[in-house]
Amino acid sequence: MDKLFYPDSVVIFGLSDNPNNMAALIVANLKNWGYEGRIYAVNPKGGRTCGLNIHTSLKGIKDEIDLAVVMSPARTVPDILDQVHEKGIEYLCIESAGFSEFSEEGKKLGREIKRKAAEYGIKFVGPNCLGVISAEKRLSLPFISLTPWVAGSVSLISQSGGVGAAILTGIQEHNISANKFVSLGNKYCLDEVDFLKYFIQDEGTKVILMYLESMERGREFVETAKSSDKPIILYKANVTGSGASRAMSHTSALANDDEILDAAVRQAGVIRVKTLDQLIQFPAAFLLPEMKGDNISIISPAGGFTVLAADHAEEHGFKFPMLSEETQSALKQYIRAGVIQLGNPIDLGDALSTDAQLMAIDKTLEQPEIDGSIYMTSRRQASNYKGPLRAMLRNPIPELAELALKHRKPVVSAFVGAPELVKEYRGDTKLPVYNSPELAIRALAAFRDFCHFKRTRVLDEKKPAAPKKALALLDAQPAGLITGNTAFEIIESAGIKTVSTVIARSAAEAAAISSRMGFPVVMKIDCPGISHKTESGGVRLGLDSSSKVKAAYADMAALLKKNKLIGNIVIQKMAGPGVEVILGARRDPSFGQVLMFGMGGIFVEALRDVVFRLAPVTPEEAAKMIDSVRAGSILKGLRGFPPSDKKALIDAIVSLGRMIAFCPRIVEMDINPLIVLPKGSGCLSVDARIVLD
Amino acid sequence: MDKLFYPDSVVIFGLSDNPNNMAALIVANLKNWGYEGRIYAVNPKGGRTCGLNIHTSLKGIKDEIDLAVVMSPARTVPDILDQVHEKGIEYLCIESAGFSEFSEEGKKLGREIKRKAAEYGIKFVGPNCLGVISAEKRLSLPFISLTPWVAGSVSLISQSGGVGAAILTGIQEHNISANKFVSLGNKYCLDEVDFLKYFIQDEGTKVILMYLESMERGREFVETAKSSDKPIILYKANVTGSGASRAMSHTSALANDDEILDAAVRQAGVIRVKTLDQLIQFPAAFLLPEMKGDNISIISPAGGFTVLAADHAEEHGFKFPMLSEETQSALKQYIRAGVIQLGNPIDLGDALSTDAQLMAIDKTLEQPEIDGSIYMTSRRQASNYKGPLRAMLRNPIPELAELALKHRKPVVSAFVGAPELVKEYRGDTKLPVYNSPELAIRALAAFRDFCHFKRTRVLDEKKPAAPKKALALLDAQPAGLITGNTAFEIIESAGIKTVSTVIARSAAEAAAISSRMGFPVVMKIDCPGISHKTESGGVRLGLDSSSKVKAAYADMAALLKKNKLIGNIVIQKMAGPGVEVILGARRDPSFGQVLMFGMGGIFVEALRDVVFRLAPVTPEEAAKMIDSVRAGSILKGLRGFPPSDKKALIDAIVSLGRMIAFCPRIVEMDINPLIVLPKGSGCLSVDARIVLD
Repeated sequence: MDKLFYPDSVVIFGLSDNPNNMAALIVANLKNWGYEGRIYAVNPKGGRTCGLNIHTSLKGIKDEIDLAVVMSPARTVPDILDQVHEKGIEYLCIESAGFSEFSEEGKKLGREIKRKAAEYGIKFVGPNCLGVISAEKRLSLPFISLTPWVAGSVSLISQSGGVGAAILTGIQEHNISANKFVSLGNKYCLDEVDFLKYFIQDEGTKVILMYLESMERGREFVETAKSSDKPIILYKANVTGSGASRAMSHTSALANDDEILDAAVRQAGVIRVKTLDQLIQFPAAFLLPEMKGDNISIISPAGGFTVLAADHAEEHGFKFPMLSEETQSALKQYIRAGVIQLGNPIDLGDALSTDAQLMAIDKTLEQPEIDGSIYMTSRRQASNYKGPLRAMLRNPIPELAELALKHRKPVVSAFVGAPELVKEYRGDTKLPVYNSPELAIRALAAFRDFCHFKRTRVLDEKKPAAPKKALALLDAQPAGLITGNTAFEIIESAGIKTVSTVIARSAAEAAAISSRMGFPVVMKIDCPGISHKTESGGVRLGLDSSSKVKAAYADMAALLKKNKLIGNIVIQKMAGPGVEVILGARRDPSFGQVLMFGMGGIFVEALRDVVFRLAPVTPEEAAKMIDSVRAGSILKGLRGFPPSDKKALIDAIVSLGRMIAFCPRIVEMDINPLIVLPKGSGCLSVDARIVLD
Repeated sequence: MDKLFYPDSVVIFGLSDNPNNMAALIVANLKNWGYEGRIYAVNPKGGRTCGLNIHTSLKGIKDEIDLAVVMSPARTVPDILDQVHEKGIEYLCIESAGFSEFSEEGKKLGREIKRKAAEYGIKFVGPNCLGVISAEKRLSLPFISLTPWVAGSVSLISQSGGVGAAILTGIQEHNISANKFVSLGNKYCLDEVDFLKYFIQDEGTKVILMYLESMERGREFVETAKSSDKPIILYKANVTGSGASRAMSHTSALANDDEILDAAVRQAGVIRVKTLDQLIQFPAAFLLPEMKGDNISIISPAGGFTVLAADHAEEHGFKFPMLSEETQSALKQYIRAGVIQLGNPIDLGDALSTDAQLMAIDKTLEQPEIDGSIYMTSRRQASNYKGPLRAMLRNPIPELAELALKHRKPVVSAFVGAPELVKEYRGDTKLPVYNSPELAIRALAAFRDFCHFKRTRVLDEKKPAAPKKALALLDAQPAGLITGNTAFEIIESAGIKTVSTVIARSAAEAAAISSRMGFPVVMKIDCPGISHKTESGGVRLGLDSSSKVKAAYADMAALLKKNKLIGNIVIQKMAGPGVEVILGARRDPSFGQVLMFGMGGIFVEALRDVVFRLAPVTPEEAAKMIDSVRAGSILKGLRGFPPSDKKALIDAIVSLGRMIAFCPRIVEMDINPLIVLPKGSGCLSVDARIVLD
């Protein structure tokens, strides 16, 4: 993709001398940014503008061209593809709108350009986008006017051009700027996965930002992201119904199931932010030295800031180690008459001088157990303030930035006050100076989590062995729903135990089977047309005598007959006292095979207390799934129940994950309920349903 | 309190010519702000500084003085109280630190000044605070340098001086300024309730902001707040363990149980924000015209902004009505070649001109069903931008502010970009211009909720009638734990039905009682020393034969004997199938009698799925309690169970709330479980415990 970001020549389609011509903005940007490559223009009307001769067709240009930028109407694009192919151009930015997001005709045009590009082996960005920016190359292709910036170390992938432009401006508040930018638009050809791969290996990029409204290749995205040493900060919008309907008419975004996406990207160490503001504000913290743990010092000359920062920091899992003797005695020289107690958070309300504050940061960062520091204050006067105490006060930010470098530990700061005062203090340092303590702490927590992920991730995970017998059984099944003993046989082969289940052909046989198993038993109809819910009559629990078994058999036989269904009536031993959970699987169009785990019965139905992970999962990941449902504590034992067999449950989750990962034919499945027995006794599936295509 | 905010003369204790003298900053502020009253200074050392003669004692001043400001060491304050009392001064700001937050000696001093002030009838702010500001009076008493501002319409009560000063500076970004400010410090005398009452009736105050770390008079706070026509925006910090331990050494704040506080202040219509940033950013939205419903239009020239705004707006309960025919046709003139579809949110990406955007806002606000509008864009160029399309673009903010006034509907905007560009666009308008779409939507949602609260609150609620019989029974009880039939008799008298419970004196009598009631029955030990949990042997469920009843009786009698306890063994009829809930009460030191409701059993134990309200509650409030627990949907009927008798449950909650509201002796109590039977069948308490003092 170097031709896209480092082209030595560019041709622009659609330039004209109309005063409202949008392509003129592209030429203006290129000149304004100082692009040193050659610039050509094509428009069938010809003419001259912006100091360029407009060629009536590409054929008129003899020189070699690396990149084409298209700003002419949608209907002209198929012909342009023919022209650029003939010319040997491999990359395009199609910025024109009017494709699938708008009309039937537009959709047809869309299909045509996809087909032509595939046929010609041409790659393009867009359509309906702002193209790319490559600050090192002084290349700026958006059709909106952008003030040039010096190439920085952040690169941005944005589905929306307008939001992307806002992010590019917003990050500059922190003296951070973009190295590269791409606006994806309708993603007919190149998408976020292509650019993610490029930016991961791109030398100029240190932090990758993304604004997305859809993600069609979720599985590839996650696999690419997981291997990245660079932080990937993602804001995925379009998560609600309204957002989705909007996206249809904006860039034809397709809404993913947000819970699945959320679980999947977190599995890959992606930092998912929930507001645009966080996407703009976080990168500064991700350029700090690595954070190695949860221990911080919090320092402020205002006691109230330490109180509210402690709230936020504790919420985000930070800890506040004691100050060392050395730190304490060093600080005491600054404290007036001992009116303040020294703890961590450090309230320096009585120390006043900037020297004391900087020394507190320096000394605490020297403590080996402290991993980073947060400094907070407010600004009220400009630096030309001449009032009392001025000799003791100075701008601490440049020195804070030096302390972070000296100790190789992150320092973030929050200055609450008028933006122009904050800007003045920040000067040209890259130290994160936020206007909100909460944002400072949140950004540092996100950075700490990324550092932790990178230190602990397993990159060369051994692929699990295929459960061959289960896969062979699945292969032998036709498309459709699998229930009953067939489903049980499949999951047993995959390693998940099931409750003993016997088909009864008559009421008498049912009674005999029940006596053999031992009362109480459960009776069920095994037939796709009948729901396994108590109220539908398809299942009867706790049958504790032969007469009850016979009566239940008669009822179920009548039910089958009444509904003109053919099915089996089966007897199961009641699974001993345990906790009901649900395991499930779903094939997501974007992320592929996804596992689900939840606490069973009422917890799923009343609370939707479930979690998702991409399959397969490691035992560690399975344990995290269990811990992350809200009612997971029930498995630890409550109300006189013994602790459940969590190890067996982990095995079951891992086994199911392995099976679905190897069988793309599974569209969806449920093991519901799975009874988790007391510790050491395993777990048992009582019912299972698999849908194949 | 006019003497505090409008004094015609001020005396400052502790001024000296020491270059680091903090009281000098107070004098500097007063001069800088243009305070027109008389200023005096007292310090036993005498001298002259800041253009003032320093009197060696208050006696040396002959003129009348309205207010004393104390900045001298803590140990001098008791004597100063004697002096000001003699002089007839009624109000003080004690800014000095060194009282209870620090040492035993300080605590003693604290008790002394409280006692003296009470004896003399003197009121004071602090100690350990920044005093007050009254911008109309040009009175600024903090010992930190503050740039003067013109009096605005927001007043601030802040427990922390430093955080308060940051808020005062921060709000000015929105061209908003404080009318009055008080820093509470240790709150030995005047506290947030006193100032809340003053600001509610204060003509210059339109919006009340609060930063608190503790709330000791919660009940009075809530009762005062509920009657306020002015919005009260509260940031309550010190909610976690760490925060609390910090506050002990800061302003001796005592941590409230945050859940109770949260429920209580929301009951009173207080807007509780969770970050300092929200406290600073929200007020601008609360100065807009009233918002009458949930319907908004969202308008942006960038499609991406409409997508992400729709996410946030939907999350906050906003709705997006269709555009009227008139609005649509008016907009069409601006749309190029129909490349964009017109919906709401309105993506004007293809309309470009500022005219189109303003017209869209104007036309949608004209639609009677639309209650407000959100406008979003980004800024990239300064206003002196001279590039293409400049004729179509101008700063829309002043005209947006006019549209809000014209239609008497709120308009908020979000401009993402460099702060100096946002500032330039904002100019001197008071229209809320946020740097984040999420913040804009959150602020508008908070304002809408406040407007809704004010429209729907019932101010002259009839006090419920006292449950005389229950109160008489409670009066007759000694302090301590009440269980069994006594507890049942009390709650029955209050209007809550209980399950029939009979004491059995022998195994044979137990069997006879059970036969009479009908099997199955429940047997329990009614004795404070034995827990009513299945595993402790104090309760046996589902006894379905005489022999099982007799055996259970023998076990329980043995258990009592073994533990050397005297108690009753009681028989209860099993309550028919229903949903277990828990009702509880607790006397909070700050908020008084508090009701608790939760879904019973595992939901309370595994999920802490409970809600609190101050007692008494109306039936409407009780219904909201039920709806706000996560598992409340179980009462609607699930998994084949019929819907529960919600009306009877509401009655039970209201009855319990009434009883505890009239009986301050109740320290805590549980009705656990209360079985909610199917619709029309009522609910029944199976167990109740009351603790009196």
